[in-house]
Amino acid sequence: MLSKSEVKYIQSLSQKKFRGEENLYIIEGPKIIDEALTVVPQHLKTIYALPEWVETNKNKVSDIEVKEITEGDLERISLLKTPNKALALMEIPWSEGFLLKKNNLALVLDGIQDPGNVGTIIRIADWFGVAQIICSADCADVYNNKVVQATMGSIFRVEVFYTNLPEWLPAQNDVPVIGAMLDGMPLNFFGKVKNGLLVIGNESKGIRQEVLPFVNQKVTIEKTGNAESLNAAVATGIILSYLK
Amino acid sequence: MLSKSEVKYIQSLSQKKFRGEENLYIIEGPKIIDEALTVVPQHLKTIYALPEWVETNKNKVSDIEVKEITEGDLERISLLKTPNKALALMEIPWSEGFLLKKNNLALVLDGIQDPGNVGTIIRIADWFGVAQIICSADCADVYNNKVVQATMGSIFRVEVFYTNLPEWLPAQNDVPVIGAMLDGMPLNFFGKVKNGLLVIGNESKGIRQEVLPFVNQKVTIEKTGNAESLNAAVATGIILSYLK
Repeated sequence: MLSKSEVKYIQSLSQKKFRGEENLYIIEGPKIIDEALTVVPQHLKTIYALPEWVETNKNKVSDIEVKEITEGDLERISLLKTPNKALALMEIPWSEGFLLKKNNLALVLDGIQDPGNVGTIIRIADWFGVAQIICSADCADVYNNKVVQATMGSIFRVEVFYTNLPEWLPAQNDVPVIGAMLDGMPLNFFGKVKNGLLVIGNESKGIRQEVLPFVNQKVTIEKTGNAESLNAAVATGIILSYLK
Repeated sequence: MLSKSEVKYIQSLSQKKFRGEENLYIIEGPKIIDEALTVVPQHLKTIYALPEWVETNKNKVSDIEVKEITEGDLERISLLKTPNKALALMEIPWSEGFLLKKNNLALVLDGIQDPGNVGTIIRIADWFGVAQIICSADCADVYNNKVVQATMGSIFRVEVFYTNLPEWLPAQNDVPVIGAMLDGMPLNFFGKVKNGLLVIGNESKGIRQEVLPFVNQKVTIEKTGNAESLNAAVATGIILSYLK
Protein backbone atom coordinates (compact mmCIF):
# COMPACT_ATOMS: atom_id res chain seq x y z
CA MET A 1 0.00 0.00 0.00
CA LEU A 2 1.22 3.49 -0.82
CA SER A 3 2.10 5.77 2.08
CA LYS A 4 0.02 8.86 2.72
CA SER A 5 2.93 11.11 1.83
CA GLU A 6 3.51 9.30 -1.47
CA VAL A 7 -0.17 9.65 -2.39
CA LYS A 8 -0.04 13.33 -1.50
CA TYR A 9 3.13 13.82 -3.54
CA ILE A 10 1.58 12.26 -6.65
CA GLN A 11 -1.65 14.21 -6.18
CA SER A 12 0.33 17.45 -5.96
CA LEU A 13 1.49 16.92 -9.55
CA SER A 14 -1.99 17.81 -10.76
CA GLN A 15 -0.93 21.39 -10.06
CA LYS A 16 1.29 23.28 -12.46
CA LYS A 17 3.35 24.81 -9.65
CA PHE A 18 4.40 21.43 -8.26
CA ARG A 19 4.98 19.97 -11.72
CA GLY A 20 7.44 22.79 -12.30
CA GLU A 21 9.19 22.31 -8.96
CA GLU A 22 9.48 18.52 -9.31
CA ASN A 23 9.95 18.56 -13.08
CA LEU A 24 7.47 15.70 -13.36
CA TYR A 25 4.07 15.07 -14.90
CA ILE A 26 1.55 12.24 -14.87
CA ILE A 27 0.42 9.89 -17.62
CA GLU A 28 -2.33 7.30 -17.12
CA GLY A 29 -3.50 4.10 -18.74
CA PRO A 30 -1.78 1.18 -20.50
CA LYS A 31 -1.94 2.72 -23.97
CA ILE A 32 -0.09 5.97 -23.31
CA ILE A 33 2.38 4.24 -20.95
CA ASP A 34 3.12 1.72 -23.69
CA GLU A 35 3.74 4.61 -26.08
CA ALA A 36 6.10 6.22 -23.53
CA LEU A 37 8.00 2.93 -23.16
CA THR A 38 8.49 2.87 -26.93
CA VAL A 39 9.22 6.52 -27.68
CA VAL A 40 10.76 8.09 -24.55
CA PRO A 41 11.62 5.31 -22.05
CA GLN A 42 14.40 7.56 -20.68
CA HIS A 43 11.75 9.97 -19.34
CA LEU A 44 9.81 7.35 -17.38
CA LYS A 45 10.60 7.74 -13.70
CA THR A 46 8.15 5.53 -11.80
CA ILE A 47 5.24 3.34 -12.87
CA TYR A 48 2.48 2.58 -10.35
CA ALA A 49 0.47 -0.37 -11.63
CA LEU A 50 -1.96 -3.11 -10.70
CA PRO A 51 -0.53 -6.65 -10.54
CA GLU A 52 -2.15 -7.62 -13.87
CA TRP A 53 -0.35 -4.76 -15.67
CA VAL A 54 2.97 -5.63 -14.03
CA GLU A 55 2.57 -9.29 -15.03
CA THR A 56 1.85 -8.42 -18.68
CA ASN A 57 4.62 -5.83 -19.01
CA LYS A 58 7.48 -7.22 -16.93
CA ASN A 59 9.70 -7.75 -19.97
CA LYS A 60 9.34 -4.15 -21.12
CA VAL A 61 10.23 -2.35 -17.91
CA SER A 62 13.52 -3.84 -16.78
CA ASP A 63 15.24 -0.47 -16.33
CA ILE A 64 12.33 1.41 -14.80
CA GLU A 65 11.09 1.61 -11.22
CA VAL A 66 7.72 -0.18 -11.05
CA LYS A 67 5.56 -0.19 -7.92
CA GLU A 68 2.80 -2.74 -7.70
CA ILE A 69 -0.27 -1.13 -6.13
CA THR A 70 -3.85 -2.04 -5.22
CA GLU A 71 -7.00 -0.76 -6.93
CA GLY A 72 -7.62 1.38 -3.83
CA ASP A 73 -4.18 3.00 -4.21
CA LEU A 74 -4.78 3.63 -7.89
CA GLU A 75 -8.10 5.31 -7.16
CA ARG A 76 -6.40 7.61 -4.68
CA ILE A 77 -3.67 8.77 -7.06
CA SER A 78 -5.60 8.75 -10.35
CA LEU A 79 -6.94 11.94 -11.91
CA LEU A 80 -9.30 10.00 -14.17
CA LYS A 81 -12.94 9.29 -13.42
CA THR A 82 -12.25 5.67 -14.28
CA PRO A 83 -8.68 4.77 -13.25
CA ASN A 84 -7.08 2.53 -15.83
CA LYS A 85 -4.61 -0.08 -14.52
CA ALA A 86 -1.47 2.06 -14.35
CA LEU A 87 -0.14 5.57 -13.78
CA ALA A 88 3.37 6.80 -14.42
CA LEU A 89 5.48 9.78 -13.44
CA MET A 90 7.34 11.25 -16.41
CA GLU A 91 10.22 13.67 -16.39
CA ILE A 92 9.54 16.94 -18.17
CA PRO A 93 12.20 17.04 -20.87
CA TRP A 94 14.72 19.77 -20.22
CA SER A 95 14.78 22.15 -23.14
CA GLU A 96 17.99 23.98 -23.95
CA GLY A 97 16.35 26.99 -25.50
CA PHE A 98 13.90 26.61 -28.32
CA LEU A 99 15.04 26.92 -31.91
CA LEU A 100 12.58 26.99 -34.78
CA LYS A 101 13.47 24.32 -37.33
CA LYS A 102 14.24 25.63 -40.79
CA ASN A 103 12.10 24.72 -43.79
CA ASN A 104 9.27 23.50 -41.67
CA LEU A 105 5.66 24.36 -41.02
CA ALA A 106 5.15 24.95 -37.29
CA LEU A 107 2.00 25.79 -35.36
CA VAL A 108 1.50 28.86 -33.19
CA LEU A 109 -1.34 28.73 -30.64
CA ASP A 110 -2.60 32.07 -29.37
CA GLY A 111 -4.79 31.88 -26.27
CA ILE A 112 -6.05 28.30 -26.63
CA GLN A 113 -7.10 27.76 -23.03
CA ASP A 114 -9.16 24.59 -23.22
CA PRO A 115 -6.93 21.63 -22.22
CA GLY A 116 -8.83 19.19 -24.44
CA ASN A 117 -8.30 21.45 -27.45
CA VAL A 118 -4.56 21.85 -26.83
CA GLY A 119 -4.20 18.08 -26.43
CA THR A 120 -6.20 17.36 -29.57
CA ILE A 121 -4.14 19.91 -31.52
CA ILE A 122 -0.90 18.20 -30.43
CA ARG A 123 -2.34 14.92 -31.70
CA ILE A 124 -3.35 16.55 -35.01
CA ALA A 125 0.15 18.06 -35.37
CA ASP A 126 1.64 14.61 -34.86
CA TRP A 127 -0.71 13.12 -37.50
CA PHE A 128 0.40 15.68 -40.09
CA GLY A 129 4.08 15.63 -39.15
CA VAL A 130 4.23 19.08 -37.56
CA ALA A 131 7.18 18.82 -35.17
CA GLN A 132 6.95 22.09 -33.24
CA ILE A 133 4.19 24.09 -31.53
CA ILE A 134 4.76 27.56 -30.10
CA CYS A 135 2.17 28.60 -27.48
CA SER A 136 1.29 31.94 -25.92
CA ALA A 137 1.77 31.87 -22.16
CA ASP A 138 -2.00 31.76 -21.57
CA CYS A 139 -2.54 28.51 -23.48
CA ALA A 140 -3.38 25.45 -21.35
CA ASP A 141 -0.24 23.85 -19.88
CA VAL A 142 0.89 20.93 -22.00
CA TYR A 143 1.64 18.87 -18.85
CA ASN A 144 -1.86 19.38 -17.45
CA ASN A 145 -3.39 15.92 -17.10
CA LYS A 146 -6.27 16.64 -19.49
CA VAL A 147 -3.89 17.89 -22.18
CA VAL A 148 -1.56 14.92 -21.74
CA GLN A 149 -4.36 12.36 -22.00
CA ALA A 150 -5.95 14.11 -25.01
CA THR A 151 -2.65 13.91 -26.92
CA MET A 152 -2.86 10.08 -26.80
CA GLY A 153 0.93 9.86 -26.73
CA SER A 154 1.63 12.49 -29.38
CA ILE A 155 3.07 14.62 -26.56
CA PHE A 156 6.20 12.44 -26.75
CA ARG A 157 6.85 13.37 -30.38
CA VAL A 158 5.89 17.04 -30.68
CA GLU A 159 8.02 19.83 -29.20
CA VAL A 160 5.94 22.46 -27.37
CA PHE A 161 7.36 25.82 -26.35
CA TYR A 162 5.69 28.65 -24.35
CA THR A 163 6.62 32.25 -24.98
CA ASN A 164 5.44 35.81 -25.36
CA LEU A 165 4.30 35.81 -28.99
CA PRO A 166 4.57 39.57 -29.71
CA GLU A 167 8.24 39.38 -28.65
CA TRP A 168 9.07 36.03 -30.20
CA LEU A 169 7.43 36.43 -33.61
CA PRO A 170 9.44 39.44 -34.86
CA ALA A 171 12.66 37.61 -33.99
CA GLN A 172 11.86 34.91 -36.60
CA ASN A 173 13.31 36.59 -39.66
CA ASP A 174 11.63 36.01 -42.97
CA VAL A 175 9.45 33.12 -41.87
CA PRO A 176 6.01 33.56 -43.45
CA VAL A 177 3.28 33.89 -40.80
CA ILE A 178 -0.15 32.59 -41.85
CA GLY A 179 -3.09 33.50 -39.66
CA ALA A 180 -6.33 31.49 -39.52
CA MET A 181 -8.94 34.24 -39.81
CA LEU A 182 -12.45 34.86 -41.03
CA ASP A 183 -11.45 37.32 -43.78
CA GLY A 184 -8.58 35.47 -45.45
CA MET A 185 -8.04 33.59 -48.69
CA PRO A 186 -9.93 30.32 -49.12
CA LEU A 187 -7.88 27.25 -48.25
CA ASN A 188 -7.72 25.85 -51.77
CA PHE A 189 -5.90 28.96 -53.00
CA PHE A 190 -2.95 27.88 -50.85
CA GLY A 191 -0.51 25.25 -52.02
CA LYS A 192 1.55 23.13 -49.67
CA VAL A 193 3.53 25.28 -47.25
CA LYS A 194 7.06 23.99 -46.66
CA ASN A 195 8.24 26.82 -44.47
CA GLY A 196 6.12 28.96 -42.19
CA LEU A 197 4.12 29.50 -39.05
CA LEU A 198 0.39 28.83 -38.88
CA VAL A 199 -1.27 30.92 -36.16
CA ILE A 200 -4.49 29.61 -34.57
CA GLY A 201 -6.31 32.06 -32.33
CA ASN A 202 -8.80 31.72 -29.51
CA GLU A 203 -12.15 30.30 -30.66
CA SER A 204 -14.26 33.25 -29.61
CA LYS A 205 -11.72 36.11 -29.62
CA GLY A 206 -9.57 35.14 -32.60
CA ILE A 207 -5.90 36.09 -32.88
CA ARG A 208 -5.12 38.83 -30.36
CA GLN A 209 -4.48 42.42 -31.45
CA GLU A 210 -0.80 42.38 -30.43
CA VAL A 211 -0.12 39.35 -32.64
CA LEU A 212 -2.01 40.50 -35.75
CA PRO A 213 0.74 42.86 -37.08
CA PHE A 214 3.03 39.85 -37.57
CA VAL A 215 0.54 37.93 -39.71
CA ASN A 216 1.43 38.37 -43.38
CA GLN A 217 -1.02 35.94 -45.00
CA LYS A 218 -4.58 35.12 -43.96
CA VAL A 219 -6.30 31.80 -44.53
CA THR A 220 -10.02 31.05 -44.16
CA ILE A 221 -12.06 27.88 -44.01
CA GLU A 222 -14.96 28.68 -46.28
CA LYS A 223 -18.36 28.42 -44.66
CA THR A 224 -21.26 27.07 -46.68
CA GLY A 225 -23.70 26.81 -43.75
CA ASN A 226 -24.66 28.77 -40.67
CA ALA A 227 -22.54 27.92 -37.62
CA GLU A 228 -20.82 30.96 -36.17
CA SER A 229 -17.42 29.35 -35.70
CA LEU A 230 -15.52 26.08 -35.72
CA ASN A 231 -13.81 24.46 -32.75
CA ALA A 232 -10.11 25.51 -32.70
CA ALA A 233 -8.85 21.94 -32.96
CA VAL A 234 -11.16 21.15 -35.88
CA ALA A 235 -10.04 24.31 -37.67
CA THR A 236 -6.38 23.37 -37.12
CA GLY A 237 -7.00 19.91 -38.56
CA ILE A 238 -8.76 21.27 -41.64
CA ILE A 239 -6.07 23.87 -42.41
CA LEU A 240 -3.18 21.45 -41.88
CA SER A 241 -4.85 18.93 -44.21
CA TYR A 242 -4.44 21.50 -47.01
CA LEU A 243 -1.10 23.04 -46.08
CA LYS A 244 0.89 19.89 -45.21
CA MET B 1 -37.61 30.77 -5.22
CA LEU B 2 -38.24 27.56 -7.13
CA SER B 3 -40.15 24.82 -5.37
CA LYS B 4 -38.40 21.56 -4.55
CA SER B 5 -40.57 19.68 -6.98
CA GLU B 6 -39.79 22.11 -9.81
CA VAL B 7 -36.05 21.79 -9.15
CA LYS B 8 -36.40 18.02 -9.12
CA TYR B 9 -38.39 18.07 -12.36
CA ILE B 10 -35.75 20.13 -14.17
CA GLN B 11 -32.93 17.99 -12.78
CA SER B 12 -34.68 14.85 -14.03
CA LEU B 13 -34.26 16.11 -17.60
CA SER B 14 -30.55 15.34 -17.39
CA GLN B 15 -31.66 11.72 -17.90
CA LYS B 16 -32.58 10.43 -21.34
CA LYS B 17 -35.54 8.49 -19.99
CA PHE B 18 -37.23 11.58 -18.55
CA ARG B 19 -36.38 13.70 -21.59
CA GLY B 20 -38.24 11.14 -23.67
CA GLU B 21 -41.25 11.05 -21.34
CA GLU B 22 -41.53 14.83 -21.06
CA ASN B 23 -40.39 15.57 -24.60
CA LEU B 24 -38.14 18.31 -23.25
CA TYR B 25 -34.42 19.07 -23.08
CA ILE B 26 -32.28 21.74 -21.44
CA ILE B 27 -30.19 24.52 -22.95
CA GLU B 28 -28.02 26.84 -20.86
CA GLY B 29 -26.42 30.23 -21.18
CA PRO B 30 -27.37 33.51 -22.89
CA LYS B 31 -25.70 32.67 -26.19
CA ILE B 32 -27.52 29.45 -27.03
CA ILE B 33 -30.81 30.78 -25.63
CA ASP B 34 -30.43 33.81 -27.87
CA GLU B 35 -29.88 31.48 -30.82
CA ALA B 36 -33.01 29.52 -29.86
CA LEU B 37 -35.02 32.75 -29.68
CA THR B 38 -33.89 33.56 -33.22
CA VAL B 39 -34.08 30.16 -34.90
CA VAL B 40 -36.71 28.09 -33.08
CA PRO B 41 -38.68 30.36 -30.68
CA GLN B 42 -41.67 28.02 -31.07
CA HIS B 43 -39.74 25.28 -29.24
CA LEU B 44 -38.91 27.37 -26.17
CA LYS B 45 -41.18 26.32 -23.32
CA THR B 46 -39.83 28.02 -20.19
CA ILE B 47 -36.84 30.23 -19.49
CA TYR B 48 -35.41 30.38 -15.95
CA ALA B 49 -33.18 33.41 -15.66
CA LEU B 50 -31.46 35.81 -13.28
CA PRO B 51 -33.00 39.31 -13.05
CA GLU B 52 -30.16 40.83 -15.14
CA TRP B 53 -30.92 38.45 -18.05
CA VAL B 54 -34.65 39.15 -17.82
CA GLU B 55 -34.01 42.91 -17.83
CA THR B 56 -31.80 42.72 -20.94
CA ASN B 57 -34.07 40.39 -22.88
CA LYS B 58 -37.56 41.47 -21.97
CA ASN B 59 -38.31 42.67 -25.49
CA LYS B 60 -37.39 39.35 -27.05
CA VAL B 61 -39.45 37.01 -24.92
CA SER B 62 -42.97 38.40 -25.00
CA ASP B 63 -44.60 35.10 -25.99
CA ILE B 64 -42.52 32.82 -23.79
CA GLU B 65 -42.89 31.87 -20.13
CA VAL B 66 -39.98 33.43 -18.23
CA LYS B 67 -39.35 32.76 -14.54
CA GLU B 68 -37.03 35.08 -12.69
CA ILE B 69 -34.85 33.06 -10.32
CA THR B 70 -32.03 33.61 -7.84
CA GLU B 71 -28.40 32.53 -8.29
CA GLY B 72 -29.04 29.82 -5.69
CA ASP B 73 -31.91 28.46 -7.78
CA LEU B 74 -29.82 28.53 -10.91
CA GLU B 75 -27.06 26.61 -9.21
CA ARG B 76 -29.52 23.95 -8.17
CA ILE B 77 -30.97 23.39 -11.66
CA SER B 78 -27.84 23.97 -13.77
CA LEU B 79 -25.84 21.07 -15.20
CA LEU B 80 -22.82 23.31 -15.84
CA LYS B 81 -19.85 23.70 -13.51
CA THR B 82 -20.28 27.45 -13.86
CA PRO B 83 -23.98 28.29 -14.27
CA ASN B 84 -24.45 31.04 -16.81
CA LYS B 85 -27.35 33.44 -16.15
CA ALA B 86 -30.18 31.47 -17.75
CA LEU B 87 -31.48 27.99 -18.48
CA ALA B 88 -34.34 27.05 -20.76
CA LEU B 89 -36.55 24.05 -21.35
CA MET B 90 -36.93 23.26 -25.03
CA GLU B 91 -39.43 21.00 -26.70
CA ILE B 92 -37.94 18.13 -28.63
CA PRO B 93 -39.21 18.68 -32.18
CA TRP B 94 -41.65 15.99 -33.20
CA SER B 95 -40.38 14.22 -36.26
CA GLU B 96 -42.85 12.78 -38.72
CA GLY B 97 -40.61 10.03 -39.94
CA PHE B 98 -37.21 10.83 -41.34
CA LEU B 99 -36.73 11.28 -45.07
CA LEU B 100 -33.29 11.66 -46.58
CA LYS B 101 -33.15 14.81 -48.69
CA LYS B 102 -32.33 14.23 -52.34
CA ASN B 103 -29.17 15.60 -53.92
CA ASN B 104 -27.57 16.27 -50.62
CA LEU B 105 -24.53 15.14 -48.70
CA ALA B 106 -25.61 13.80 -45.29
CA LEU B 107 -23.52 12.46 -42.42
CA VAL B 108 -23.84 9.01 -40.89
CA LEU B 109 -22.35 8.52 -37.40
CA ASP B 110 -21.60 4.95 -36.41
CA GLY B 111 -20.90 4.44 -32.70
CA ILE B 112 -19.76 7.96 -31.79
CA GLN B 113 -20.34 7.74 -28.06
CA ASP B 114 -18.54 10.80 -26.74
CA PRO B 115 -21.11 13.61 -26.23
CA GLY B 116 -18.54 16.34 -26.92
CA ASN B 117 -17.68 14.73 -30.24
CA VAL B 118 -21.31 14.38 -31.33
CA GLY B 119 -21.97 18.02 -30.40
CA THR B 120 -18.87 19.24 -32.21
CA ILE B 121 -19.82 17.20 -35.29
CA ILE B 122 -23.29 18.81 -35.37
CA ARG B 123 -21.57 22.22 -35.24
CA ILE B 124 -19.22 21.20 -38.08
CA ALA B 125 -22.17 19.95 -40.14
CA ASP B 126 -23.87 23.30 -39.65
CA TRP B 127 -20.70 25.17 -40.71
CA PHE B 128 -20.51 23.21 -43.97
CA GLY B 129 -24.24 23.26 -44.66
CA VAL B 130 -24.89 19.57 -44.00
CA ALA B 131 -28.59 19.49 -43.07
CA GLN B 132 -29.05 15.89 -41.89
CA ILE B 133 -27.19 13.48 -39.62
CA ILE B 134 -28.15 9.82 -39.27
CA CYS B 135 -26.85 8.18 -36.06
CA SER B 136 -26.56 4.58 -34.96
CA ALA B 137 -28.58 3.92 -31.80
CA ASP B 138 -25.41 3.75 -29.67
CA CYS B 139 -24.26 7.29 -30.51
CA ALA B 140 -24.52 9.85 -27.69
CA ASP B 141 -28.05 11.26 -27.39
CA VAL B 142 -28.32 14.59 -29.17
CA TYR B 143 -30.40 16.01 -26.29
CA ASN B 144 -27.79 15.10 -23.68
CA ASN B 145 -26.69 18.36 -22.05
CA LYS B 146 -23.06 17.99 -23.12
CA VAL B 147 -24.03 17.39 -26.74
CA VAL B 148 -26.45 20.31 -26.75
CA GLN B 149 -23.91 22.75 -25.30
CA ALA B 150 -21.14 21.56 -27.65
CA THR B 151 -23.34 22.27 -30.68
CA MET B 152 -23.37 25.97 -29.75
CA GLY B 153 -26.84 26.34 -31.22
CA SER B 154 -26.26 24.31 -34.37
CA ILE B 155 -28.65 21.74 -32.92
CA PHE B 156 -31.51 24.05 -33.96
CA ARG B 157 -30.53 23.88 -37.62
CA VAL B 158 -29.38 20.30 -38.21
CA GLU B 159 -31.81 17.37 -38.31
CA VAL B 160 -30.57 14.35 -36.35
CA PHE B 161 -32.14 10.92 -36.69
CA TYR B 162 -31.35 7.70 -34.77
CA THR B 163 -31.77 4.33 -36.43
CA ASN B 164 -30.40 0.86 -36.96
CA LEU B 165 -27.85 1.51 -39.70
CA PRO B 166 -27.63 -2.03 -41.18
CA GLU B 167 -31.40 -1.87 -41.73
CA TRP B 168 -31.67 1.75 -42.81
CA LEU B 169 -28.73 1.94 -45.23
CA PRO B 170 -29.90 -0.69 -47.75
CA ALA B 171 -33.27 1.09 -47.99
CA GLN B 172 -31.55 4.21 -49.42
CA ASN B 173 -31.52 3.21 -53.08
CA ASP B 174 -28.63 4.37 -55.21
CA VAL B 175 -27.25 6.88 -52.76
CA PRO B 176 -23.43 6.60 -52.79
CA VAL B 177 -22.07 5.65 -49.37
CA ILE B 178 -18.57 6.97 -48.61
CA GLY B 179 -16.78 5.53 -45.61
CA ALA B 180 -13.99 7.33 -43.74
CA MET B 181 -11.38 4.58 -43.43
CA LEU B 182 -7.66 4.05 -43.16
CA ASP B 183 -7.30 2.23 -46.51
CA GLY B 184 -9.29 4.49 -48.81
CA MET B 185 -8.51 6.99 -51.55
CA PRO B 186 -6.76 10.19 -50.50
CA LEU B 187 -9.10 13.12 -50.01
CA ASN B 188 -7.84 15.18 -52.90
CA PHE B 189 -8.86 12.44 -55.35
CA PHE B 190 -12.45 13.23 -54.48
CA GLY B 191 -14.30 16.14 -56.04
CA LYS B 192 -17.23 17.84 -54.39
CA VAL B 193 -19.95 15.35 -53.51
CA LYS B 194 -23.44 16.66 -54.21
CA ASN B 195 -25.32 13.51 -53.32
CA GLY B 196 -24.27 10.88 -50.83
CA LEU B 197 -23.75 9.65 -47.30
CA LEU B 198 -20.45 10.11 -45.46
CA VAL B 199 -20.01 7.45 -42.76
CA ILE B 200 -17.80 8.28 -39.76
CA GLY B 201 -17.00 5.37 -37.46
CA ASN B 202 -15.92 5.05 -33.87
CA GLU B 203 -12.47 6.53 -33.21
CA SER B 204 -10.87 3.32 -31.98
CA LYS B 205 -13.03 0.65 -33.61
CA GLY B 206 -13.81 2.28 -36.96
CA ILE B 207 -16.97 1.56 -38.93
CA ARG B 208 -18.61 -1.59 -37.57
CA GLN B 209 -18.59 -4.88 -39.50
CA GLU B 210 -22.34 -4.87 -40.12
CA VAL B 211 -22.17 -1.45 -41.79
CA LEU B 212 -19.10 -2.05 -43.98
CA PRO B 213 -20.94 -3.98 -46.75
CA PHE B 214 -22.94 -0.84 -47.56
CA VAL B 215 -19.87 1.36 -48.06
CA ASN B 216 -19.11 1.68 -51.76
CA GLN B 217 -16.32 4.26 -51.69
CA LYS B 218 -13.57 4.71 -49.11
CA VAL B 219 -11.90 8.00 -48.25
CA THR B 220 -8.72 8.50 -46.21
CA ILE B 221 -7.07 11.49 -44.60
CA GLU B 222 -3.45 11.02 -45.55
CA LYS B 223 -1.04 10.82 -42.63
CA THR B 224 2.38 12.41 -42.94
CA GLY B 225 3.35 11.99 -39.28
CA ASN B 226 3.03 9.42 -36.52
CA ALA B 227 -0.21 9.74 -34.53
CA GLU B 228 -2.25 6.56 -34.55
CA SER B 229 -5.59 8.20 -35.25
CA LEU B 230 -7.46 11.48 -35.42
CA ASN B 231 -10.34 12.58 -33.21
CA ALA B 232 -13.67 11.68 -34.91
CA ALA B 233 -14.87 15.30 -35.00
CA VAL B 234 -11.56 16.53 -36.44
CA ALA B 235 -11.70 13.82 -39.12
CA THR B 236 -15.28 14.81 -39.99
CA GLY B 237 -14.26 18.45 -40.33
CA ILE B 238 -11.33 17.64 -42.59
CA ILE B 239 -13.33 15.36 -44.91
CA LEU B 240 -16.28 17.76 -45.19
CA SER B 241 -13.90 20.61 -46.05
CA TYR B 242 -12.98 18.66 -49.21
CA LEU B 243 -16.33 17.12 -50.07
CA LYS B 244 -18.62 20.14 -49.54
